Amino acid sequence: MSVRAKRVSATREQILVAAERLFAEHGLTVSNRQISEAAGQGNNFAVGYHFGTKTDLVRAIMHSHQEQIERHRLRMLGQVAESTDLRVWASCLVRPYTEHLAALGSPSWFARFAAQVATDPMLRAIMIDEALLRPSLLRVIEGLHACLPALPEEVRRERSDMARLLIEHVCAERERALAEGTGTPRATWDDTATGLIDALVGQWLAPVTNAPVMNA
Amino acid sequence: MSVRAKRVSATREQILVAAERLFAEHGLTVSNRQISEAAGQGNNFAVGYHFGTKTDLVRAIMHSHQEQIERHRLRMLGQVAESTDLRVWASCLVRPYTEHLAALGSPSWFARFAAQVATDPMLRAIMIDEALLRPSLLRVIEGLHACLPALPEEVRRERSDMARLLIEHVCAERERALAEGTGTPRATWDDTATGLIDALVGQWLAPVTNAPVMNA
Repeated sequence: MSVRAKRVSATREQILVAAERLFAEHGLTVSNRQISEAAGQGNNFAVGYHFGTKTDLVRAIMHSHQEQIERHRLRMLGQVAESTDLRVWASCLVRPYTEHLAALGSPSWFARFAAQVATDPMLRAIMIDEALLRPSLLRVIEGLHACLPALPEEVRRERSDMARLLIEHVCAERERALAEGTGTPRATWDDTATGLIDALVGQWLAPVTNAPVMNA
Repeated sequence: MSVRAKRVSATREQILVAAERLFAEHGLTVSNRQISEAAGQGNNFAVGYHFGTKTDLVRAIMHSHQEQIERHRLRMLGQVAESTDLRVWASCLVRPYTEHLAALGSPSWFARFAAQVATDPMLRAIMIDEALLRPSLLRVIEGLHACLPALPEEVRRERSDMARLLIEHVCAERERALAEGTGTPRATWDDTATGLIDALVGQWLAPVTNAPVMNA
């Protein structure tokens, strides 16, 4: 890599780190200008120059984390093979994310960033593209659903949506509590995963009061 | 009310409606200027004049809805008295919100607005003040916890946090699916509440793998 290419790469990395942190701590209204400043760039247009729009920047942050989460997930998938144990599949859903967050060390910012992106009406498409449509994740959901043959299809779908929302937002709230030094119910990300898996298994196994009628 | 007071009140209402809709559909980055325009105000500073900052505007929207949700909750609390049925208390947690959303008609925007406010690092304090600290809600959580005497205190707290996150975000996703005409697993808000209550009861009754150690 040339000296110039190395410098460009270091600048891009500084911008990604600054942006993720500002989004996590101040929200998605943070401007490209504020990010350029926080990244130590004299040029207020550094974000635009290196990434294009704010959407492109958000996608770059999301992509880099999801690649790492994917690696944890593929490793776990290699271990579970054709398991029919719901708890094993719930682990494959939860632990790739909590292991990634643990690996980031403390403080981390990604969980708060990701929860906001997933909730934003314009940016959520990025979450869908970069995270939710990954074949390895669809394989986990398939494995989960195979453990629940008696559950109506709509309820399986409903509870898998619930699982995704719960993992996203429980991790974001825990990350915030760690950053702010307020209490958290679990000492480690590993324990947090255990608590999530307990709750999700309970949720998936819960009796269904009314079989819903699909409203497509 | 004087003619002038009536006109001011109508303008405020137009701004509240326009702001809630723009936040729901385009995100919290929407500017006061865009809101003033969408509310049909020739003056781009109408939001500032009538509400102050964006934070004040968000609080006004949240307050007005939470007052209505509170009325549903107080009515339900009046009916349950000293019930020891977990499902009854889960209903008191879920249905005041889904009944409010049903009463708003379709399309509604509040659930998407509220989920973003709850996830935003700066604005979430408004959700805490206007919704989570209401005595009637704390009474419901107390009623819930009384049905779960065997659950360690930290796990009760963890699962109540999970319940809040689930209700918030499941309702926001359903509202978005209704607005966009994509499918939803449940035909009505009433059925959505039933699905949430089933899942939450399953979650609260789930066995605890490891009693966590409090990290305060």
